[in-house]
Amino acid sequence: MRCPLNPRPPSRLRGCLGVLGCVFCGIVSGSEPAWRVYEDDVVVVILDKYPVSKGHLLVITKKHYESIHDADPREALHAFAVAAALARVYRTKLGAPGVNVVTNSGRPAGQVIFHFHVHVIPRWSGGSFRWSSRHELTAEEAEEVIAELEPHLDGVKSYLRKAGLSAHI
Amino acid sequence: MRCPLNPRPPSRLRGCLGVLGCVFCGIVSGSEPAWRVYEDDVVVVILDKYPVSKGHLLVITKKHYESIHDADPREALHAFAVAAALARVYRTKLGAPGVNVVTNSGRPAGQVIFHFHVHVIPRWSGGSFRWSSRHELTAEEAEEVIAELEPHLDGVKSYLRKAGLSAHI
Repeated sequence: MRCPLNPRPPSRLRGCLGVLGCVFCGIVSGSEPAWRVYEDDVVVVILDKYPVSKGHLLVITKKHYESIHDADPREALHAFAVAAALARVYRTKLGAPGVNVVTNSGRPAGQVIFHFHVHVIPRWSGGSFRWSSRHELTAEEAEEVIAELEPHLDGVKSYLRKAGLSAHI
Repeated sequence: MRCPLNPRPPSRLRGCLGVLGCVFCGIVSGSEPAWRVYEDDVVVVILDKYPVSKGHLLVITKKHYESIHDADPREALHAFAVAAALARVYRTKLGAPGVNVVTNSGRPAGQVIFHFHVHVIPRWSGGSFRWSSRHELTAEEAEEVIAELEPHLDGVKSYLRKAGLSAHI
Protein backbone atom coordinates (compact mmCIF):
# COMPACT_ATOMS: atom_id res chain seq x y z
CA MET A 1 0.00 0.00 0.00
CA ARG A 2 1.40 3.37 -0.98
CA CYS A 3 0.11 6.81 -0.25
CA PRO A 4 0.81 10.30 -1.54
CA LEU A 5 4.29 11.55 -0.90
CA ASN A 6 4.83 14.11 1.80
CA PRO A 7 6.37 16.82 -0.39
CA ARG A 8 8.62 18.26 2.28
CA PRO A 9 9.88 15.61 4.71
CA PRO A 10 11.58 17.77 7.33
CA SER A 11 13.78 15.11 8.94
CA ARG A 12 14.12 11.41 9.52
CA LEU A 13 12.46 11.86 12.90
CA ARG A 14 9.54 13.74 11.56
CA GLY A 15 8.74 12.79 8.06
CA CYS A 16 8.00 10.13 5.52
CA LEU A 17 10.50 7.80 3.97
CA GLY A 18 11.41 9.86 0.92
CA VAL A 19 10.17 8.66 -2.39
CA LEU A 20 9.04 5.32 -1.03
CA GLY A 21 5.87 6.90 0.35
CA CYS A 22 4.21 7.34 3.72
CA VAL A 23 5.77 5.73 6.78
CA PHE A 24 2.36 5.12 8.38
CA CYS A 25 1.04 3.37 5.27
CA GLY A 26 4.20 1.25 5.46
CA ILE A 27 3.47 0.40 9.09
CA VAL A 28 -0.13 -0.48 8.27
CA SER A 29 0.96 -2.79 5.44
CA GLY A 30 3.75 -4.29 7.55
CA SER A 31 6.61 -3.12 5.33
CA GLU A 32 7.79 -0.72 8.03
CA PRO A 33 8.53 -1.90 11.57
CA ALA A 34 6.59 -0.62 14.58
CA TRP A 35 5.63 -1.76 18.06
CA ARG A 36 1.98 -2.67 17.61
CA VAL A 37 -0.42 -2.41 20.53
CA TYR A 38 -3.84 -2.98 18.96
CA GLU A 39 -5.41 -3.48 15.57
CA ASP A 40 -8.90 -3.78 14.13
CA ASP A 41 -10.47 -3.30 10.72
CA VAL A 42 -10.18 0.49 10.81
CA VAL A 43 -7.08 1.42 12.83
CA VAL A 44 -3.68 0.28 14.00
CA VAL A 45 -2.28 1.51 17.33
CA ILE A 46 1.49 1.72 17.69
CA LEU A 47 3.97 3.11 20.15
CA ASP A 48 5.31 6.47 19.04
CA LYS A 49 8.95 5.97 18.03
CA TYR A 50 9.83 9.27 19.70
CA PRO A 51 7.52 9.40 22.72
CA VAL A 52 6.75 12.54 24.67
CA SER A 53 6.17 10.29 27.68
CA LYS A 54 6.34 6.57 28.45
CA GLY A 55 3.36 4.93 26.80
CA HIS A 56 2.79 7.56 24.08
CA LEU A 57 0.53 5.87 21.50
CA LEU A 58 -0.56 6.72 17.97
CA VAL A 59 -3.94 5.62 16.65
CA ILE A 60 -3.55 5.46 12.87
CA THR A 61 -6.31 4.90 10.35
CA LYS A 62 -5.55 2.02 8.01
CA LYS A 63 -6.68 4.07 5.05
CA HIS A 64 -4.58 7.06 4.15
CA TYR A 65 -6.02 10.49 4.90
CA GLU A 66 -3.92 13.57 5.31
CA SER A 67 -5.50 14.67 8.58
CA ILE A 68 -8.79 15.19 10.37
CA HIS A 69 -9.92 17.65 7.69
CA ASP A 70 -10.20 15.00 4.96
CA ALA A 71 -10.62 11.79 6.98
CA ASP A 72 -13.85 9.87 6.48
CA PRO A 73 -16.07 10.86 9.45
CA ARG A 74 -16.81 7.26 10.49
CA GLU A 75 -13.15 6.29 10.41
CA ALA A 76 -12.07 9.46 12.21
CA LEU A 77 -14.65 8.79 14.93
CA HIS A 78 -13.49 5.21 15.20
CA ALA A 79 -9.92 6.46 15.75
CA PHE A 80 -11.12 8.87 18.46
CA ALA A 81 -13.09 6.06 20.12
CA VAL A 82 -10.02 3.82 20.27
CA ALA A 83 -7.97 6.76 21.56
CA ALA A 84 -10.61 7.51 24.22
CA ALA A 85 -10.67 3.86 25.29
CA LEU A 86 -6.89 3.82 25.66
CA ALA A 87 -6.98 7.11 27.57
CA ARG A 88 -9.48 5.49 29.91
CA VAL A 89 -7.18 2.47 30.35
CA TYR A 90 -4.30 4.78 31.29
CA ARG A 91 -6.37 6.80 33.76
CA THR A 92 -8.45 4.06 35.37
CA LYS A 93 -6.30 0.93 35.08
CA LEU A 94 -2.66 2.01 34.87
CA GLY A 95 -2.68 4.88 37.34
CA ALA A 96 -1.79 7.75 35.01
CA PRO A 97 -2.87 11.00 36.70
CA GLY A 98 -3.26 12.64 33.31
CA VAL A 99 -3.60 11.95 29.62
CA ASN A 100 -3.76 14.12 26.49
CA VAL A 101 -5.68 13.04 23.42
CA VAL A 102 -4.56 15.17 20.48
CA THR A 103 -4.71 15.33 16.74
CA ASN A 104 -2.69 17.91 14.85
CA SER A 105 -3.82 18.95 11.40
CA GLY A 106 -1.43 20.92 9.20
CA ARG A 107 2.17 21.95 9.66
CA PRO A 108 1.38 25.12 11.71
CA ALA A 109 -0.45 22.85 14.17
CA GLY A 110 2.61 20.65 14.58
CA GLN A 111 1.61 17.82 12.25
CA VAL A 112 4.75 16.13 10.99
CA ILE A 113 3.50 12.92 9.38
CA PHE A 114 0.74 13.63 6.92
CA HIS A 115 -1.35 10.54 7.55
CA PHE A 116 -4.23 11.05 10.00
CA HIS A 117 -3.41 9.92 13.53
CA VAL A 118 -4.50 10.60 17.08
CA HIS A 119 -1.94 10.84 19.88
CA VAL A 120 -2.68 9.33 23.30
CA ILE A 121 -0.12 10.69 25.73
CA PRO A 122 -0.21 9.54 29.34
CA ARG A 123 1.13 12.16 31.73
CA TRP A 124 2.90 10.69 34.71
CA SER A 125 3.87 14.05 36.19
CA GLY A 126 2.99 17.70 35.70
CA GLY A 127 4.85 20.37 33.79
CA SER A 128 4.43 21.93 30.41
CA PHE A 129 3.64 19.88 27.38
CA ARG A 130 6.60 19.90 25.01
CA TRP A 131 6.63 18.12 21.66
CA SER A 132 10.34 18.90 21.54
CA SER A 133 11.12 16.84 24.66
CA ARG A 134 10.80 13.50 22.87
CA HIS A 135 13.24 10.65 23.41
CA GLU A 136 13.89 7.64 21.21
CA LEU A 137 11.88 4.56 22.16
CA THR A 138 13.97 1.59 23.32
CA ALA A 139 12.98 -2.06 22.97
CA GLU A 140 12.95 -2.37 26.75
CA GLU A 141 10.53 0.55 27.16
CA ALA A 142 8.32 -0.74 24.33
CA GLU A 143 8.09 -4.21 25.85
CA GLU A 144 7.23 -2.76 29.26
CA VAL A 145 4.45 -0.58 27.86
CA ILE A 146 2.95 -3.41 25.80
CA ALA A 147 3.05 -5.76 28.81
CA GLU A 148 1.21 -3.15 30.90
CA LEU A 149 -1.44 -2.44 28.26
CA GLU A 150 -2.09 -5.99 27.08
CA PRO A 151 -4.31 -7.16 29.97
CA HIS A 152 -6.61 -4.18 29.38
CA LEU A 153 -7.09 -4.27 25.62
CA ASP A 154 -10.47 -5.99 25.92
CA GLY A 155 -11.53 -2.59 27.23
CA VAL A 156 -11.05 -1.11 23.78
CA LYS A 157 -13.60 -3.40 22.13
CA SER A 158 -15.96 -2.95 25.05
CA TYR A 159 -15.63 0.85 24.69
CA LEU A 160 -16.32 0.61 20.96
CA ARG A 161 -19.49 -1.38 21.66
CA LYS A 162 -20.65 1.19 24.22
CA ALA A 163 -19.99 3.92 21.66
CA GLY A 164 -22.16 2.08 19.14
CA LEU A 165 -19.18 1.05 17.00
CA SER A 166 -17.63 -2.25 16.06
CA ALA A 167 -14.06 -3.42 15.58
CA HIS A 168 -15.22 -4.79 12.24
CA ILE A 169 -16.28 -2.86 9.17
CA MET B 1 -27.99 22.32 37.06
CA ARG B 2 -25.09 21.91 39.45
CA CYS B 3 -22.13 19.61 39.26
CA PRO B 4 -19.51 18.40 41.68
CA LEU B 5 -17.29 21.10 43.03
CA ASN B 6 -13.76 21.31 41.75
CA PRO B 7 -12.00 20.92 45.09
CA ARG B 8 -9.01 23.06 44.16
CA PRO B 9 -10.00 25.90 41.86
CA PRO B 10 -6.62 27.41 41.05
CA SER B 11 -7.78 30.81 39.82
CA ARG B 12 -10.73 32.66 38.36
CA LEU B 13 -9.23 32.13 34.93
CA ARG B 14 -8.76 28.44 35.31
CA GLY B 15 -11.27 27.00 37.67
CA CYS B 16 -14.83 26.65 38.76
CA LEU B 17 -16.83 29.30 40.50
CA GLY B 18 -16.14 28.31 44.07
CA VAL B 19 -18.94 26.74 45.99
CA LEU B 20 -21.50 27.59 43.37
CA GLY B 21 -20.37 24.69 41.22
CA CYS B 22 -18.93 24.12 37.79
CA VAL B 23 -18.63 27.03 35.37
CA PHE B 24 -19.33 24.80 32.35
CA CYS B 25 -22.52 23.46 33.92
CA GLY B 26 -23.47 27.09 34.48
CA ILE B 27 -22.82 27.88 30.82
CA VAL B 28 -24.87 24.87 29.73
CA SER B 29 -27.80 25.94 31.91
CA GLY B 30 -27.47 29.58 30.88
CA SER B 31 -26.68 30.92 34.34
CA GLU B 32 -23.13 31.78 33.25
CA PRO B 33 -22.45 33.94 30.19
CA ALA B 34 -20.56 32.61 27.16
CA TRP B 35 -20.30 33.26 23.44
CA ARG B 36 -22.23 30.33 22.00
CA VAL B 37 -21.39 29.02 18.56
CA TYR B 38 -23.41 25.83 18.26
CA GLU B 39 -25.72 23.67 20.35
CA ASP B 40 -27.49 20.34 19.99
CA ASP B 41 -28.94 17.78 22.38
CA VAL B 42 -25.54 16.54 23.54
CA VAL B 43 -23.07 19.43 23.41
CA VAL B 44 -22.68 23.19 23.53
CA VAL B 45 -19.83 24.88 21.65
CA ILE B 46 -18.52 28.15 23.02
CA LEU B 47 -15.63 30.47 22.38
CA ASP B 48 -12.84 29.97 24.90
CA LYS B 49 -12.78 33.00 27.17
CA TYR B 50 -8.97 32.93 27.09
CA PRO B 51 -8.18 31.77 23.55
CA VAL B 52 -4.81 30.41 22.48
CA SER B 53 -5.63 31.70 18.99
CA LYS B 54 -8.45 33.59 17.31
CA GLY B 55 -11.36 31.17 16.98
CA HIS B 56 -10.40 28.82 19.82
CA LEU B 57 -13.54 26.78 20.57
CA LEU B 58 -14.60 24.45 23.36
CA VAL B 59 -17.00 21.58 22.73
CA ILE B 60 -18.64 20.88 26.08
CA THR B 61 -20.92 17.95 26.89
CA LYS B 62 -24.21 19.10 28.36
CA LYS B 63 -24.00 16.42 31.01
CA HIS B 64 -21.27 16.76 33.56
CA TYR B 65 -18.34 14.36 33.31
CA GLU B 66 -14.95 15.05 34.79
CA SER B 67 -13.02 14.19 31.63
CA ILE B 68 -12.64 11.66 28.85
CA HIS B 69 -11.96 8.91 31.38
CA ASP B 70 -15.48 8.93 32.82
CA ALA B 71 -17.51 10.45 29.95
CA ASP B 72 -20.22 8.29 28.43
CA PRO B 73 -18.66 6.85 25.24
CA ARG B 74 -21.53 7.95 22.97
CA GLU B 75 -21.46 11.50 24.31
CA ALA B 76 -17.67 11.69 24.17
CA LEU B 77 -17.75 10.53 20.56
CA HIS B 78 -20.44 13.05 19.75
CA ALA B 79 -18.20 15.80 21.18
CA PHE B 80 -15.27 14.58 19.07
CA ALA B 81 -17.49 14.50 15.97
CA VAL B 82 -18.57 18.11 16.50
CA ALA B 83 -14.94 19.07 17.13
CA ALA B 84 -13.84 17.27 13.95
CA ALA B 85 -16.56 19.00 11.95
CA LEU B 86 -15.46 22.41 13.23
CA ALA B 87 -11.82 21.57 12.53
CA ARG B 88 -12.88 20.74 8.97
CA VAL B 89 -14.70 24.10 8.71
CA TYR B 90 -11.56 25.93 9.82
CA ARG B 91 -9.28 24.04 7.41
CA THR B 92 -11.51 23.82 4.35
CA LYS B 93 -13.79 26.87 4.58
CA LEU B 94 -12.01 29.51 6.64
CA GLY B 95 -8.47 29.08 5.37
CA ALA B 96 -6.76 28.00 8.58
CA PRO B 97 -3.51 26.26 7.62
CA GLY B 98 -3.61 24.25 10.84
CA VAL B 99 -5.87 23.14 13.67
CA ASN B 100 -5.38 21.22 16.89
CA VAL B 101 -8.13 19.07 18.39
CA VAL B 102 -7.25 18.32 21.99
CA THR B 103 -8.75 17.02 25.17
CA ASN B 104 -6.80 17.17 28.41
CA SER B 105 -7.65 14.76 31.20
CA GLY B 106 -6.28 15.41 34.68
CA ARG B 107 -4.26 18.23 36.12
CA PRO B 108 -0.85 16.88 34.98
CA ALA B 109 -2.24 16.93 31.42
CA GLY B 110 -3.16 20.59 31.72
CA GLN B 111 -6.87 20.18 32.45
CA VAL B 112 -8.07 23.20 34.39
CA ILE B 113 -11.85 22.94 34.29
CA PHE B 114 -13.01 19.54 35.41
CA HIS B 115 -15.94 19.15 33.07
CA PHE B 116 -15.22 17.18 29.89
CA HIS B 117 -14.47 19.38 26.89
CA VAL B 118 -12.63 19.21 23.58
CA HIS B 119 -10.56 22.16 22.35
CA VAL B 120 -10.62 23.14 18.67
CA ILE B 121 -7.73 25.52 18.10
CA PRO B 122 -7.21 26.98 14.63
CA ARG B 123 -3.59 27.79 13.93
CA TRP B 124 -3.11 30.79 11.72
CA SER B 125 0.66 30.72 11.85
CA GLY B 126 3.39 28.34 12.99
CA GLY B 127 5.38 28.29 16.21
CA SER B 128 5.16 26.30 19.37
CA PHE B 129 1.87 25.55 21.01
CA ARG B 130 1.64 27.41 24.29
CA TRP B 131 -1.33 27.19 26.64
CA SER B 132 0.27 30.05 28.55
CA SER B 133 0.02 32.46 25.62
CA ARG B 134 -3.72 33.02 26.02
CA HIS B 135 -5.31 36.43 25.78
CA GLU B 136 -8.70 37.56 27.05
CA LEU B 137 -11.48 37.34 24.47
CA THR B 138 -13.01 40.68 23.51
CA ALA B 139 -16.58 41.20 22.31
CA GLU B 140 -15.24 42.42 18.97
CA GLU B 141 -13.16 39.27 18.45
CA ALA B 142 -16.05 37.03 19.54
CA GLU B 143 -18.47 38.70 17.13
CA GLU B 144 -15.98 38.36 14.28
CA VAL B 145 -15.41 34.65 14.92
CA ILE B 146 -19.13 33.91 15.21
CA ALA B 147 -19.85 35.81 11.99
CA GLU B 148 -17.19 33.78 10.18
CA LEU B 149 -18.38 30.42 11.51
CA GLU B 150 -22.11 30.94 11.19
CA PRO B 151 -22.47 30.36 7.43
CA HIS B 152 -20.73 26.98 7.82
CA LEU B 153 -22.54 25.50 10.80
CA ASP B 154 -24.78 23.35 8.61
CA GLY B 155 -21.55 21.44 8.02
CA VAL B 156 -21.62 20.25 11.61
CA LYS B 157 -24.97 18.47 11.25
CA SER B 158 -23.94 17.11 7.88
CA TYR B 159 -20.72 15.75 9.45
CA LEU B 160 -22.69 14.16 12.28
CA ARG B 161 -24.93 12.41 9.74
CA LYS B 162 -21.93 11.13 7.80
CA ALA B 163 -20.48 9.86 11.07
CA GLY B 164 -23.71 7.98 11.76
CA LEU B 165 -24.73 10.34 14.57
CA SER B 166 -27.61 12.74 15.06
CA ALA B 167 -27.88 16.16 16.64
CA HIS B 168 -30.80 14.72 18.60
CA ILE B 169 -30.73 12.11 21.34
